[in-house]
Amino acid sequence: MDLSAFLLSLITIYVCARIMGELAVRIGQSAVLGELLAGVLIGGSGLGWLHETETLTLLGQVGVMLLLFEIGLESDIHSFLRVGRSAATVAAIGVVAPFALGYGLALMLGLSQFQAIFIGATLTATSVALSASVLSELGKLKTAEGHIILGAAVLDDLLGLVILSVVIGLATSGLVSWMTVGWTAGLAMAFLVTAIVAGIRYAHLLSRLIDRLSSRGGAVIVALTFALFLGYLADRLQIAPLVGAFAAGLVLARSDHQTHIQERIRPVADVFVPIFFVLIGAAVELRHFNPLNEQNWPTLWLAGGLTLVAIIGKLAAGLGAWRESVNRWAIGVGMLPRGEVGLIFAGVGLSHRILDEGQYGAILLVVALTTLIAPLLLKRTFRKA
Amino acid sequence: MDLSAFLLSLITIYVCARIMGELAVRIGQSAVLGELLAGVLIGGSGLGWLHETETLTLLGQVGVMLLLFEIGLESDIHSFLRVGRSAATVAAIGVVAPFALGYGLALMLGLSQFQAIFIGATLTATSVALSASVLSELGKLKTAEGHIILGAAVLDDLLGLVILSVVIGLATSGLVSWMTVGWTAGLAMAFLVTAIVAGIRYAHLLSRLIDRLSSRGGAVIVALTFALFLGYLADRLQIAPLVGAFAAGLVLARSDHQTHIQERIRPVADVFVPIFFVLIGAAVELRHFNPLNEQNWPTLWLAGGLTLVAIIGKLAAGLGAWRESVNRWAIGVGMLPRGEVGLIFAGVGLSHRILDEGQYGAILLVVALTTLIAPLLLKRTFRKA
Repeated sequence: MDLSAFLLSLITIYVCARIMGELAVRIGQSAVLGELLAGVLIGGSGLGWLHETETLTLLGQVGVMLLLFEIGLESDIHSFLRVGRSAATVAAIGVVAPFALGYGLALMLGLSQFQAIFIGATLTATSVALSASVLSELGKLKTAEGHIILGAAVLDDLLGLVILSVVIGLATSGLVSWMTVGWTAGLAMAFLVTAIVAGIRYAHLLSRLIDRLSSRGGAVIVALTFALFLGYLADRLQIAPLVGAFAAGLVLARSDHQTHIQERIRPVADVFVPIFFVLIGAAVELRHFNPLNEQNWPTLWLAGGLTLVAIIGKLAAGLGAWRESVNRWAIGVGMLPRGEVGLIFAGVGLSHRILDEGQYGAILLVVALTTLIAPLLLKRTFRKA
Repeated sequence: MDLSAFLLSLITIYVCARIMGELAVRIGQSAVLGELLAGVLIGGSGLGWLHETETLTLLGQVGVMLLLFEIGLESDIHSFLRVGRSAATVAAIGVVAPFALGYGLALMLGLSQFQAIFIGATLTATSVALSASVLSELGKLKTAEGHIILGAAVLDDLLGLVILSVVIGLATSGLVSWMTVGWTAGLAMAFLVTAIVAGIRYAHLLSRLIDRLSSRGGAVIVALTFALFLGYLADRLQIAPLVGAFAAGLVLARSDHQTHIQERIRPVADVFVPIFFVLIGAAVELRHFNPLNEQNWPTLWLAGGLTLVAIIGKLAAGLGAWRESVNRWAIGVGMLPRGEVGLIFAGVGLSHRILDEGQYGAILLVVALTTLIAPLLLKRTFRKA
């Protein structure tokens, strides 16, 4: 990719994301939905203006880390701990219910045991970035609902790690090494706890560092580097890097420079985040949607059924917040989008030839539908309440 | 490049650039010198921690565009026009003198006519990013000296375009098509004038657009996209994209949102710019410097002689500002660094087999020395005055 092509891609992404985001806001929807649709529009199966390249993917991944870093930075960790039990219950139901329903439905439709396990596993995913972004837009990030959704989604990522280890074990050797699974999960959990506890304890050192830097841009670089570093560590432990960045945000939220950092990270996030959402939209394969093509029918039927149980399973998860007096519908809806996490599961299934093209296509449809429907429903649920 | 490697590269760049930048400031040097040296230290011929990849190169190029955009944004176009004649004289001498001296020296040392032309052409380059960044740090950007240096460097880039066309013509066919050369140069000049004139006339439309955008991050995205767009157009016309970005900055400097945009672009620039300087430093090949290796001696002699005439030629250029009562030494020093522009010329010479490895190495040395010496001298010259 030469500079010319790169600049053109960025210009296309920003112009289309802004136009579609603005239109979405004008008709009462969230800007994120507009950005996703901008991606669908200019992506490979739309106008074909945007070609995903390594550089754009990397920038998008940094974007989603910055999004979660910013959200961590605005959050108070105690608010998360206060709703911890509810978040854990929501996460647990949000994994068990979609898995059981997806597994059962797949078996009913005559798929093999293996395929059913994979499909069930895919439905357990939650894309925290999307819900977080919409909640932030609606100003609902700091409500009990917001904290439960974010907390549950982060826990879901840790549970997803366990599921992915199991699923990859099944795919490669047909066996599951429970020791490996336990070790990976334990390590990830230990990282998260250590990062936050040690981080909060030593956050003042980062503050002092920022104070002492005399050259320009000290605060933004120290904060960004810290977020990238925890994201990197998370990635090495096979947790989503955005969980590490989120932890970095929670830590710096308690530093003296919180407002200062927030103001400076915001424009940087504004530059990177749209790339992520547009690429997610561009990954939607429209050709699987075409009902005029008879070959798509089995895929569409499977997708329809799976979408239904995918939605029911996560809405049921919302009921897990019975301890709090909150809008449980909103919580369920916030857990809906499968986003990039669902794509990773499905990708493993396809590359190990456990799922065929049609089944893979059906999962892509489920991911697309739950991801596009969530901003719409989330806005509506909160407006009603 | 996977996410893990990318994050690690960014972390390494930021940590080393900040440490070295800070050390440079502490011993009274400019932060940019520290960042360049950080690049030398962690680059391929240093510790080898940093490997240049396509993604990093692209981010660095966006970084240098943002740097010039920001500088344009802080500038008043009238200050440039006021010193226009001096800047033009400085640019003209800054091209003719180093070319003549380099050409003559190369012939004297027994190089061929062709090789001498190439070497002369390389010495004409000026890397505006480096001087601009140092001037900004010293708070000297808005002085007459600052305006003359920037103006002359931009004109030098346009002259460089003519020289590059001539030189590529010589390299490929041995002939120069003066029509092509004239056309390219005319187009570039027309672009610059049109972009600024039309831009200033219609800048209020961009302001209105920013006012009307209701979703988050409007100002930073509109400004950035405009800078990327003019940079893209410049690139298509074979002018350096940073000239386009600089023009975009000059235009938006006259909009109502100037301060607003400036505040928001600053952290974004802080994130991208260090990548550029570190990569420039990392391109320095230390092995050519080693005087213990006898094979390096011809290269070192050639490099020494060329560095001398490279410096004399550009210092002479400073005398071109005789109309103004300014520090002419400072202007000459500001024109010294060859930076990435010199590397492009030398690269063409090597790839067309006009220069051999040793001669190419000598030019890399000249580029490295003039680039590293400029921040040092610039600071000293201004302190004296």
